[in-house]
Amino acid sequence: MEENDALRAMDAEQLREHAHKMVDFIADYYKTIQNFPVLSQVQPGYLGKLLPDSAPEYPESLQNVLDDVKEKILPGVTHWQSPNYFAYFPSNSSIAGFLGEMLSAGLNIVGFSWITSPAATELESIVLDWLAKAFQLPEDFYSSGKGGGVIQGTASEAVLVVLLAARDKILRRLGRSALPKLVIYASDQTHSALRKACQIAGLNPELCKLLKADSATNYALSPEVLSEAISNDIAGGLVPFFLCATVGTTSSTAIDPLPALGKIAKTNNLWFHVDAAYAGSACICPEYRHCFDGIEESDSFNMNAHKWFLTNFDCSVLWVKASQGNMVIDYKDWQIPLGRRFRSLKLWMVLRLYGLEGLRSHVRNHIELAAYFEELVSQDTRFKVVVPRTFSLVCFRLLPPLNSEDHGNKLNSDLLDSVNSTGNIFITHTVLSGEYILRFAVGAPLTERRHVTTAWQIFQEKATALLGSLQD
Amino acid sequence: MEENDALRAMDAEQLREHAHKMVDFIADYYKTIQNFPVLSQVQPGYLGKLLPDSAPEYPESLQNVLDDVKEKILPGVTHWQSPNYFAYFPSNSSIAGFLGEMLSAGLNIVGFSWITSPAATELESIVLDWLAKAFQLPEDFYSSGKGGGVIQGTASEAVLVVLLAARDKILRRLGRSALPKLVIYASDQTHSALRKACQIAGLNPELCKLLKADSATNYALSPEVLSEAISNDIAGGLVPFFLCATVGTTSSTAIDPLPALGKIAKTNNLWFHVDAAYAGSACICPEYRHCFDGIEESDSFNMNAHKWFLTNFDCSVLWVKASQGNMVIDYKDWQIPLGRRFRSLKLWMVLRLYGLEGLRSHVRNHIELAAYFEELVSQDTRFKVVVPRTFSLVCFRLLPPLNSEDHGNKLNSDLLDSVNSTGNIFITHTVLSGEYILRFAVGAPLTERRHVTTAWQIFQEKATALLGSLQD
Repeated sequence: MEENDALRAMDAEQLREHAHKMVDFIADYYKTIQNFPVLSQVQPGYLGKLLPDSAPEYPESLQNVLDDVKEKILPGVTHWQSPNYFAYFPSNSSIAGFLGEMLSAGLNIVGFSWITSPAATELESIVLDWLAKAFQLPEDFYSSGKGGGVIQGTASEAVLVVLLAARDKILRRLGRSALPKLVIYASDQTHSALRKACQIAGLNPELCKLLKADSATNYALSPEVLSEAISNDIAGGLVPFFLCATVGTTSSTAIDPLPALGKIAKTNNLWFHVDAAYAGSACICPEYRHCFDGIEESDSFNMNAHKWFLTNFDCSVLWVKASQGNMVIDYKDWQIPLGRRFRSLKLWMVLRLYGLEGLRSHVRNHIELAAYFEELVSQDTRFKVVVPRTFSLVCFRLLPPLNSEDHGNKLNSDLLDSVNSTGNIFITHTVLSGEYILRFAVGAPLTERRHVTTAWQIFQEKATALLGSLQD
Repeated sequence: MEENDALRAMDAEQLREHAHKMVDFIADYYKTIQNFPVLSQVQPGYLGKLLPDSAPEYPESLQNVLDDVKEKILPGVTHWQSPNYFAYFPSNSSIAGFLGEMLSAGLNIVGFSWITSPAATELESIVLDWLAKAFQLPEDFYSSGKGGGVIQGTASEAVLVVLLAARDKILRRLGRSALPKLVIYASDQTHSALRKACQIAGLNPELCKLLKADSATNYALSPEVLSEAISNDIAGGLVPFFLCATVGTTSSTAIDPLPALGKIAKTNNLWFHVDAAYAGSACICPEYRHCFDGIEESDSFNMNAHKWFLTNFDCSVLWVKASQGNMVIDYKDWQIPLGRRFRSLKLWMVLRLYGLEGLRSHVRNHIELAAYFEELVSQDTRFKVVVPRTFSLVCFRLLPPLNSEDHGNKLNSDLLDSVNSTGNIFITHTVLSGEYILRFAVGAPLTERRHVTTAWQIFQEKATALLGSLQD
């Protein structure tokens, strides 16, 4: 390589040339994404065998690196953006979200305080006000009121920062010696992030009380169960201080009854946090907004724009009622890290390039596809839909033969493995009331009706094969 | 806009077309970056006056958004990538780092566990082994040994996760009731992230002991002072458990004496963490590797590839000696959040597209430029270099007139404001031993000798004006 050809650390024209190549590489990836197995089929340690064991001393070309991405990296990628990806919850990439990431990486500012890039702080406040309005959140959550919004990396960080705020608020009142007595409440369907946050915050892990929710309430937290737990804990000398409710749980998209829970929280002076990481996106549609009823009782509220809202990972949106009321916001004091990327750019671009109506269509389309899948499942008497579908997740299982020893748990686990090993689709599972349940989560931007039809055919074929082998 | 023209959530050809436009926008930004004031000159609240108060209902065009970026966002940006940016520490964007961000955003996987994209986990381990080798770290830090590396977002998260690991390790031994007695040590030059981490972790803030470091040790932590503090605390019934040393402090790039501190940590059974967030990059050069001597005594070690190592923000690299030893790594258990981006791609691309020699040249070039600036300062008797320069930061001040009431603190603060308000350069300050000190940090990839020369001329002119006005 000639000296003059060497890639400079930064140079406008070299950046232009190389980045155009990368655009074509990524566009080609999306063009051919259906050719890859959705779930990577590599074995642990595969990549170490393909790469050298030291960094190169001298520069290599972009073409070499892109060849390696194609031949060595992509086989080890699980393709979250594939139209045949139905696992976990979606994590949307979109054209607007991608453009926003590009712009943010291009400017590469570190907006930890207002002065380090005023536009980063101000655009974040403005866009979160736009979103608060679109969700019809109470005005307390607007930056013009006593509160405001902030972009966190993930819902885990969101619940951690509000847990810390609540912890320090009550410790200021009661003194630090109260720390080992602080009690946290949520249903046992709550995301594991809450337990992790409690551990990080130095709270007594035994006092993170995950109250049983079962099929009687469709896995929502019962206000009666909560009230009773609080009364018992107070009687036992403990200090209840935090309640986390969920709109759209990870297992089965259960919706905790916010109005009743909010009243209990108020009566008992608990910080009331609402986690709508996945289902929040749906509430931008008027016909789903009722799922947020009671949100006005909450102290903080979180949804993940990076899940089902076309905003590339990571972008978790948190609103709080209480803030510091300085003239300018220094967002470093609203989060765990000091530095922060200019993440509001991508959310702003998503809102502008699709508009609220575009986002509503996006969500409605997936809900219709999930309803279609639910209909297919319910037409096959060998299967059962196990909880009513509300959003774009269908929880179902293959019914076991009458004399099944494990009540069908092994059968459904085998069905999941069988389906995923085809590489044609990828789904995950959960456990509800001891039963192994299959989760079919629609939400990838490229998913169309035909992908759902094909997915269902795979389930049917593999079920036929499995049930047949049981009878042999 | 016709129905057919509407931007789809995802579409390979629309992505190609729009992303090529964005590449040109970003390349043009770098082409003209010197035309902007380095430090944004807007007033608080400026952006709210320029943007509507709701998100649009219907889609807008990319051209509209880019026009707004140009006219409304860029004036509010502080240009960290400007060649005239000498504030804080650098936060390098590079062509390779930018390409890596593009690719990561394009794939948009969420690699919280091995199975969610094996390549993400495995590339991270491999690249961190490459880097461990390049830094000549002890083998205990390699993934093949008992430890391994992990990419965190920031140094704040890095120190938090190791503090939590150390806290829970000692609490397992002593029981949770020991929590209020746990003591943390560092010098008072340590980054504020440590105090924040202690607060998050529920540790007693009064027991986060920031020991005084002064000009006698060039602001490094004295082993004697540490030993004495530990002895006193043990005698007082407290439980010392964590020591944080710094290689290259934020104020003045002081280097704590790792070998002596490591011995004290070992004797007293403290977790020994080394923070080399900024200066770590320099230690890739053999002539600076000695700054890491003693690193073999540490339990964990952190450097920020996003500072001075051409890797776009965020990419903070943490190595730990102790890990869980499972067959596959699930990095979610090594960090605060659950979800994680495919950040190893950008670090891998930086290492391959520049090579270790390219990175060494990058760092050496900036150190030479800082030495040049230091020389310029020391040739002007009105100024003083206040601590010996080691890396690419020069700490200096304008000497006050003899009868100055505030010993020059207002003078230097005025000089900083005067220099920054030109928009031609941006610097920040620190306080050492009560004195207001100017910090000139070289490190932006576009900075050349001529930018340093011009910067110094601005300091001289503004100093002349300020000193002149004092004599009026």
